[in-house]
Amino acid sequence: MLSVNELALDIFEELFEYAEEFNAVPHELDNGARIVDCGVSTTGGYRAGRQFTEICMGGLGEVDITMGRIKDVPIPFIEVSTDFPAIACLGAQKAGWTVNVNKYFAMGSGPARALSLKPKHTYEVIEYEDEFDYAVIALESDHLPNAGVMEKIADACNVDVANTCAVVAPTASIVGSVQVAGRCVETAVYKLNELGFDTKKITAGIGHAPIAPVKKDGTKAMGSTNDATIYHGSIMLTMNAPEIKDYLDRIPSNTSRGYGKPFYDIFKEANFDFYQIDTSLFSPAEVVINELSEGAVYHVGAVNPEVTLKSFGFI
Amino acid sequence: MLSVNELALDIFEELFEYAEEFNAVPHELDNGARIVDCGVSTTGGYRAGRQFTEICMGGLGEVDITMGRIKDVPIPFIEVSTDFPAIACLGAQKAGWTVNVNKYFAMGSGPARALSLKPKHTYEVIEYEDEFDYAVIALESDHLPNAGVMEKIADACNVDVANTCAVVAPTASIVGSVQVAGRCVETAVYKLNELGFDTKKITAGIGHAPIAPVKKDGTKAMGSTNDATIYHGSIMLTMNAPEIKDYLDRIPSNTSRGYGKPFYDIFKEANFDFYQIDTSLFSPAEVVINELSEGAVYHVGAVNPEVTLKSFGFI
Amino acid sequence: MLSVNELALDIFEELFEYAEEFNAVPHELDNGARIVDCGVSTTGGYRAGRQFTEICMGGLGEVDITMGRIKDVPIPFIEVSTDFPAIACLGAQKAGWTVNVNKYFAMGSGPARALSLKPKHTYEVIEYEDEFDYAVIALESDHLPNAGVMEKIADACNVDVANTCAVVAPTASIVGSVQVAGRCVETAVYKLNELGFDTKKITAGIGHAPIAPVKKDGTKAMGSTNDATIYHGSIMLTMNAPEIKDYLDRIPSNTSRGYGKPFYDIFKEANFDFYQIDTSLFSPAEVVINELSEGAVYHVGAVNPEVTLKSFGFI
Repeated sequence: MLSVNELALDIFEELFEYAEEFNAVPHELDNGARIVDCGVSTTGGYRAGRQFTEICMGGLGEVDITMGRIKDVPIPFIEVSTDFPAIACLGAQKAGWTVNVNKYFAMGSGPARALSLKPKHTYEVIEYEDEFDYAVIALESDHLPNAGVMEKIADACNVDVANTCAVVAPTASIVGSVQVAGRCVETAVYKLNELGFDTKKITAGIGHAPIAPVKKDGTKAMGSTNDATIYHGSIMLTMNAPEIKDYLDRIPSNTSRGYGKPFYDIFKEANFDFYQIDTSLFSPAEVVINELSEGAVYHVGAVNPEVTLKSFGFI
Repeated sequence: MLSVNELALDIFEELFEYAEEFNAVPHELDNGARIVDCGVSTTGGYRAGRQFTEICMGGLGEVDITMGRIKDVPIPFIEVSTDFPAIACLGAQKAGWTVNVNKYFAMGSGPARALSLKPKHTYEVIEYEDEFDYAVIALESDHLPNAGVMEKIADACNVDVANTCAVVAPTASIVGSVQVAGRCVETAVYKLNELGFDTKKITAGIGHAPIAPVKKDGTKAMGSTNDATIYHGSIMLTMNAPEIKDYLDRIPSNTSRGYGKPFYDIFKEANFDFYQIDTSLFSPAEVVINELSEGAVYHVGAVNPEVTLKSFGFI
Repeated sequence: MLSVNELALDIFEELFEYAEEFNAVPHELDNGARIVDCGVSTTGGYRAGRQFTEICMGGLGEVDITMGRIKDVPIPFIEVSTDFPAIACLGAQKAGWTVNVNKYFAMGSGPARALSLKPKHTYEVIEYEDEFDYAVIALESDHLPNAGVMEKIADACNVDVANTCAVVAPTASIVGSVQVAGRCVETAVYKLNELGFDTKKITAGIGHAPIAPVKKDGTKAMGSTNDATIYHGSIMLTMNAPEIKDYLDRIPSNTSRGYGKPFYDIFKEANFDFYQIDTSLFSPAEVVINELSEGAVYHVGAVNPEVTLKSFGFI
């Protein structure tokens, strides 16, 4: 079985060694833990964003950035594909590990989760666990973790702290915008998993989403980076699962209660109480399904250029 | 002179060694022949499709996959370019070798053809032959070749059977859809060759075509994967050949007799008798020519989104 | 500090060693200087164009080529991004060194300029100078430099002539078309520098421009390759500089006096006297700015498909 930490470690090592070329800053803590700052005290950039996203996907995703267009506005898009949708997206990329140690807070994602099994239920349904003596984690945070935080991560992953590797970037940074848009395929797989669909039956995923311009603060950035997928993510999934017909109308974002406004506005109306929000909103704008056993295709949802450009600040 | 088998061998070796990351399965037969299954007993995927296509082109093509759109439907496209159109497309990628040994059948393509010279006439007109002690072949088939089949291939290529390498994928598979779309530039070069044009005068080719969703069976897949280029392949060729003016109106698919219906429908109407079909249909939807000696440009043909989406099953 | 010559040397070495795969021709002169001909006595191609452009950007840019579309015409586009806009674009890619030795003439660009400091003012404003014992230069010329020309370059860069490396391509060649389109981001950074803006505040740049079909002669090629960016270059810059608001209306090409006709026509009307032309024309068609300190976005200018297709010869 492939090890997502082993594959991601190769990508991390390149980022660590040549950090300067990525506008990133490498740190080795006293306990041997290694961290690459991709946007906290540095500017990061598109290359670091690509590398960060590939690490999130445990080395089982291909990532590229090209210039696209939404109505008359040129916007870069991230192109993502994977031939291991359940493992790469749910087993690694999903932000399923809330790292909360003393005063440090980060949304944790990446292959280290497949060692710490956070959350355990995910690894049961996808029937995957990693075994490797290095743990590679991606942290969405405004701050770098200290030695104590890395020790907690090492403990949870059952590896030596000197074998822990973290990449870190705030939501409101170029790498933040890139890596959240890079979750466009994951969002489709995640939604199907939430609906009770067996995502092991998905054999390939490909998609793209616009890279949101960077906002001034984290909450606004959380809004626009999520809107990139909610209102303009286009995904294609290939699968062996004729039962997908029963899930189709619940996949795209436009079937959720809050649909139609930028996420920040919805969040504000809910007094910034996350638990008031209809989580079914976290889906791609549109999804194409290619079901192999019947040779069928389905297309649900649609991109929404107006709300996307409004969220991004262009209109 | 460049050896297309030498260049393709490097790509094959990577695919063989890291097959699991490509959702592919490596096999070494008792006689030493090596095979990578990219879709017969496994699912393959986009990465295997890219590698398969680059092997087909003898390492002289660049291949990428990005999300595109046909009308309101998001569809992945393959992007192909080559600076050696005659050698890469006719000398390697063209499916010019029907491998028919006992009960085994496959459409053979790839650089091994430049050793076995199948068909010989092709290599005379492009004035290229390879010399190398390994043979790399791509097989479009629902089955893997056995030792006897590989020995026949070795004999035809005049190499040791232990030095034969094959990649295999059915038409009705993701790799099948990718690698047939990957022939979009080849189709333009092939058509010009069929028209009697000297393709050695073409200095560069670039193009893209949609990757057809996978159909349930091989005949339907043959239809939709060919329609990808016939109805939605866009190619640009650069050449030193003012005489191209005399060929322009015969290049694109829309000048052929059968044009206007999905290929499967045409095939069915001909009672699935291939020899009843106007072969001039096998062309890209549109071609741009940049003729260097006169600094001229020409644009012939047009994409046909309606028939493409109909063929793919969306309308 | 990163060395643009060190990074570019790696790219040059690959191009030199595998020149045949790039349709390029390597030369080693008696004095040890190395030259790769990418279009003077050979055809070059897309791969050589990518490599040439990455050398121009001192290894600090990412370059890709994909098929795009202008109105109903398929046209390849170059995709360019950099996380070091001032250094990659002004410190290396800018054609700031007129190489004029005896009868040899070339527009010089690339990292060697960061050793010879041509022009010195540029390096003062971007606060960058390279230190490296190899000099890598890109020459836009119809002819290859001889030993004497390379010695002058070595002297200006203060390196041993055996450590000088040059890539050469005419404007009217595929590599010429690719590498000039590859300046689309540079043109935006250059324009801001000309307007007195501090380009060190730009943290990332991404953009694309169509690759002009190759014209018959250099002057016409100069026109169409520049029109690619002037009339159809779309750029996004990320920066920390709220003062950008004062520069916005002067950035895009459509605010210049000559705007609206193919460059060749403007040049001809000025009796081919370069000094009669409004240099503010040398800008991208449209620019999106993401200003980080205020979390703002701006979009100025627009692509002009009609003039672009007219310049390229399609209408």
